[in-house]
Amino acid sequence: MICLTAILATSLSDAHGDEGMWLFNDLPLAMLKERYGFEPSNEWAEHLMKSSVRFNVGGSASFISSTGLVLTNHHVGSDTLFKLSTPERNIMEVGFLAKTPDQELKAPDLELNQLVNIKDVTDVVKASVTDGMSTEQAVAARRAVIARIEKAALDESGLKSTVTTLYGGGRYHLYQYKKYTDVRLVWAPETAIAFFGGDADNFEYPRYCLDATIFRVYEDGKPAKIEHFLKWSANGPEENEVAFVSGNPGRTSRIFTMDALKYQRDLNLPYIMANLRRQEILLQQYALRGKENARRARDELFGVQNSRKARLGMLAGLQDPQVLADKAAAEAKLREIIAADPKLKALGSAWDTIAETTKKRASLLGKGVAINSQLYNIALELVQMAEEDQKPSGERLPEFSDAGRESLLQQLYSEAPIYTDLDQTLLGDSIAKTLEQRGFDDPVCQKILAGKSPADRAAELISGTELLSVEARKKIAAGGIQAINDSKDPLIMLAKIVNPPIRRIRSITDQLDEQDKQAYALIAEAKFATQGTSAYPDATFTLRLAFGPVKGYEQDGQQIPAWTNVGGAFEHEKQHEGQTDYKLPESWKKAESKLSKTTPFNFVSTADIIGGNSGSPVVNKAGELVGLIFDGNVQSLSGNYVYTDKQARSVSVHSSAIREALQVVYGADNIVKELGQ
Amino acid sequence: MICLTAILATSLSDAHGDEGMWLFNDLPLAMLKERYGFEPSNEWAEHLMKSSVRFNVGGSASFISSTGLVLTNHHVGSDTLFKLSTPERNIMEVGFLAKTPDQELKAPDLELNQLVNIKDVTDVVKASVTDGMSTEQAVAARRAVIARIEKAALDESGLKSTVTTLYGGGRYHLYQYKKYTDVRLVWAPETAIAFFGGDADNFEYPRYCLDATIFRVYEDGKPAKIEHFLKWSANGPEENEVAFVSGNPGRTSRIFTMDALKYQRDLNLPYIMANLRRQEILLQQYALRGKENARRARDELFGVQNSRKARLGMLAGLQDPQVLADKAAAEAKLREIIAADPKLKALGSAWDTIAETTKKRASLLGKGVAINSQLYNIALELVQMAEEDQKPSGERLPEFSDAGRESLLQQLYSEAPIYTDLDQTLLGDSIAKTLEQRGFDDPVCQKILAGKSPADRAAELISGTELLSVEARKKIAAGGIQAINDSKDPLIMLAKIVNPPIRRIRSITDQLDEQDKQAYALIAEAKFATQGTSAYPDATFTLRLAFGPVKGYEQDGQQIPAWTNVGGAFEHEKQHEGQTDYKLPESWKKAESKLSKTTPFNFVSTADIIGGNSGSPVVNKAGELVGLIFDGNVQSLSGNYVYTDKQARSVSVHSSAIREALQVVYGADNIVKELGQ
Repeated sequence: MICLTAILATSLSDAHGDEGMWLFNDLPLAMLKERYGFEPSNEWAEHLMKSSVRFNVGGSASFISSTGLVLTNHHVGSDTLFKLSTPERNIMEVGFLAKTPDQELKAPDLELNQLVNIKDVTDVVKASVTDGMSTEQAVAARRAVIARIEKAALDESGLKSTVTTLYGGGRYHLYQYKKYTDVRLVWAPETAIAFFGGDADNFEYPRYCLDATIFRVYEDGKPAKIEHFLKWSANGPEENEVAFVSGNPGRTSRIFTMDALKYQRDLNLPYIMANLRRQEILLQQYALRGKENARRARDELFGVQNSRKARLGMLAGLQDPQVLADKAAAEAKLREIIAADPKLKALGSAWDTIAETTKKRASLLGKGVAINSQLYNIALELVQMAEEDQKPSGERLPEFSDAGRESLLQQLYSEAPIYTDLDQTLLGDSIAKTLEQRGFDDPVCQKILAGKSPADRAAELISGTELLSVEARKKIAAGGIQAINDSKDPLIMLAKIVNPPIRRIRSITDQLDEQDKQAYALIAEAKFATQGTSAYPDATFTLRLAFGPVKGYEQDGQQIPAWTNVGGAFEHEKQHEGQTDYKLPESWKKAESKLSKTTPFNFVSTADIIGGNSGSPVVNKAGELVGLIFDGNVQSLSGNYVYTDKQARSVSVHSSAIREALQVVYGADNIVKELGQ
Repeated sequence: MICLTAILATSLSDAHGDEGMWLFNDLPLAMLKERYGFEPSNEWAEHLMKSSVRFNVGGSASFISSTGLVLTNHHVGSDTLFKLSTPERNIMEVGFLAKTPDQELKAPDLELNQLVNIKDVTDVVKASVTDGMSTEQAVAARRAVIARIEKAALDESGLKSTVTTLYGGGRYHLYQYKKYTDVRLVWAPETAIAFFGGDADNFEYPRYCLDATIFRVYEDGKPAKIEHFLKWSANGPEENEVAFVSGNPGRTSRIFTMDALKYQRDLNLPYIMANLRRQEILLQQYALRGKENARRARDELFGVQNSRKARLGMLAGLQDPQVLADKAAAEAKLREIIAADPKLKALGSAWDTIAETTKKRASLLGKGVAINSQLYNIALELVQMAEEDQKPSGERLPEFSDAGRESLLQQLYSEAPIYTDLDQTLLGDSIAKTLEQRGFDDPVCQKILAGKSPADRAAELISGTELLSVEARKKIAAGGIQAINDSKDPLIMLAKIVNPPIRRIRSITDQLDEQDKQAYALIAEAKFATQGTSAYPDATFTLRLAFGPVKGYEQDGQQIPAWTNVGGAFEHEKQHEGQTDYKLPESWKKAESKLSKTTPFNFVSTADIIGGNSGSPVVNKAGELVGLIFDGNVQSLSGNYVYTDKQARSVSVHSSAIREALQVVYGADNIVKELGQ
């Protein structure tokens, strides 16, 4: 049960327009009332919260029927679509429809979470760190108290229980989730229409994408009975109608100090971009070798391209002198007010702390072990799990705590296919990258290579490992630290070589994170003291509410309308004739004459979203589903650091387009019948 | 007139197999006699030398008729094919054939060079640098004497005269060229067959590429009369027959010390690769926006991809511990011998010098101004030319000396199209890169940005410049330094901002180059003293002779045959059905039934080549054309540092395939008639 408390909207001194990713237990009621004449009831909020679903692979979703149907984006589901595909049944390419529940395909390792409870545990967590503790002690103390809270909550409720750090360390809330691990695929369209326009149209607008997929959650082998789900709106939103987005924005950095932002701009983002480009070219080259290669690489390639494009937008934002000018002015003003106030003066040290941690982060950048492949990651996880399990839960690295064990093992023991040729390509290149980062003559690098070239070494490791077999993984895990010590599996042996330097760097970054947490907690205090407690916290891949009207914008002197329609997709295809990713699927060509061309297809609104929001339901004041978030336009990408609503927009699939396509293109009457039931 | 002198083959202590890119005035006659029973006459060598042609854009070629026909690769000619293309006449895509001379298309800015004379000027150049000179003085002295030699040679002969540094500074030779600047396109096949298999097949073998194009040189508006040209062989080479390659290998680094190689491996190549990947993704993204964009970006994209793949191969070679082990052992042995010999001992300092210069190079890496676009480069050239022209020729930066002026102006005043949207994209990204390299707050960066984002600044610069007009360029150039000082053209103004830091870095690297030259001259002396003067110098984009038998190799347990044939191309298409770049052009489909499928298509030999050799004629002992170099396989790429002949191969188009295609596919009877005439 969550509680809505009234707060003052007027005190939001540095928020703009519809800025805000609001906590469900701290909604801006006064602002909603003032701006949109809307007073959501506790029931409205609770219903929306419990109708919302989180995809742990990194996306959002919603329940859309009492019978367990879950709506999300095609690109959120694509990890599963890819794992369920084979060369003979390429779901990514041809789509999928189960006409009856027994045709539904079980996802090999999906976990969906429904948020059911939020509790503020700030006082308990903060009390664990006392004056005079070293940073290392503080890390351990905070880790221990969080593990204890999570374990107790799990034991008491049986719910997945996670303590979330908010306001960069200013608040700690315990989030409790009902977990669904039996998830089955019901419907997916072809990638050709889900991602119409491909990488070129990604983050652009106007768009014409049916970026939607439907799963169903099961319990005890039967479709789960769902109490809270969203009814389908009859017609979707009007122009300028306020729309609400309930989803899990992954990460924003709006609390960042100027020093932290400059580190992102000058060092970290360029470094990440270089890595993404490297990965992109590598996967492209692998995919060029043949059609099956292209299929195998597609999911990862999409992820890398998407990330590259998103980060380019973030970097472009930071490289615009005018974007940071506002930030700098607001920070200077805040620091001035604090410095002048004897009660607040001490908080000023936070900025110096972050300047320091930022310098240390810069010195570590590109110094780590960059090895990366699915089988290698499994090996490293087995090695670290065996080590960590020798300690009590509270002293372990958080990902190995008792509370998270079930989710961890679901991934580790997944039967999803691993393509060894692709994995070997990734492993070889990432070994080469490690040499470049640490220097060829570095002793760890020499041990990694064992006298061979990166490519030859990768071939030897992949052909020699047994970890492709889930049984082999389980056997090693069951043997604990002794099995790890005795293992002659070449990937386990590699993981043992790189584990010590990886842990060394992890320990340093954990301490830097702790210092940042303490510093941002002070900055949050400073903001609470000067701006009221009304500010929303940065995104943390937990459920938030955003909102804003459906409306277009001006670009290069042209008015971009809020809507596209189904007919526009056919025109868009014509305009890009012969180009890759601009070919509508056969199913749409066949259905063209039966489709209503005026049905709205995609639309934009000013709601404040970011990566992780993909798949979020968009609802109206009545709580009905009117759309499905799938993207932000390129102007929205600097939203990681700064929200604007001049041109930045979230992009949704219109609810009517999904229904129309299900009926007319895919003949999915069975699904349409279930919607809203 | 060149002279062949007998040298001892047996003294080549660290050369392997057919290693060697030999100077035409210092051919390994004894080795050829011993190994291949072949004693080339002076006339044989002179004929081959004068039949060889250099493309100044970076490739090789040969005269193939008395009527001025020049054969090179499609990918060497593609720069010109691209410049001659328009959306309506896309020569890159559909190919080209002039049935009569008046249909031939004049290249906007091609310069071809025919080497006619080589003279050793080592003593004069070395004498200019005396003991006690500072590095700066040495740079100036060497620059002055070289400019004087070149100017005198030009004035005396009217020939383009260039002093080439050989053995990293051990020898200086004056090369004199007859220049052809009226060059016209006669025939080009479609890119689909010239580059069949695209980026995926590039640097791979077996191959099926008709990577050939024919130009014609003109003098006084008429086809030039050519004395030395290659006759077409009746059948091409036999298996294991020795084949000779006469071309211009661009650059090798086989004299590099271990310190210099480690710098390449650990820092320079990874840095270059990151830049290439960035450029590749940028161009891909630009090309995705539409078909015309793809056409505009294609030439540069090919260059970047080709370079990226080549350098990946080089880096992979250096990252193989076994490749460098030989190098390290040979270096240690040489240093040991020197150290033990009182007469040679002083030479040992060379390695320390290079260790030092290498460290300084590392400290400069990625600190420069990275701005890059065609129009910006023109602006910078105009600014620097005006500055340099205030000094006498011998004191200028070499590219602005009197001897090279004609070639410089041909490029600067080229009427080849510049696409401003593409140029703006390149400019914006390279400004962003400069910010990342130098740091956003760097004063030069702040001046570059002028308060705008990189993208906005690029838009402003490109829309404001007049340099798209060749007349405007000429006018500024005519006005000298005063015109530069007065110019309000935004790109000229930008060039003035960045010119000082660019010159500062240039001055430092010039001095490092000078120190390296002096050091490598000592190492060359050490090698001459211990191994005889038989060693060939590293490649310098000047004419060299390489040779080796036509033969296959073993890979992954399979025997790769020396030849492919025309029928194989059709099979290769089938195996890669539906993949980009694996579609044979319509012309080949139509001609399929008439083509002799057993005609050899591509072949490999052990001849020692590298980038720049593309387009080199391959001849037999009789001096007849048997092939056309167009690639090396992936195993050959580490040849930049180390030659091997275990798997490394040069890849050629077979002469018979070119003739067959001209006749059967393209109906170019007019060309076939001229061949060998």
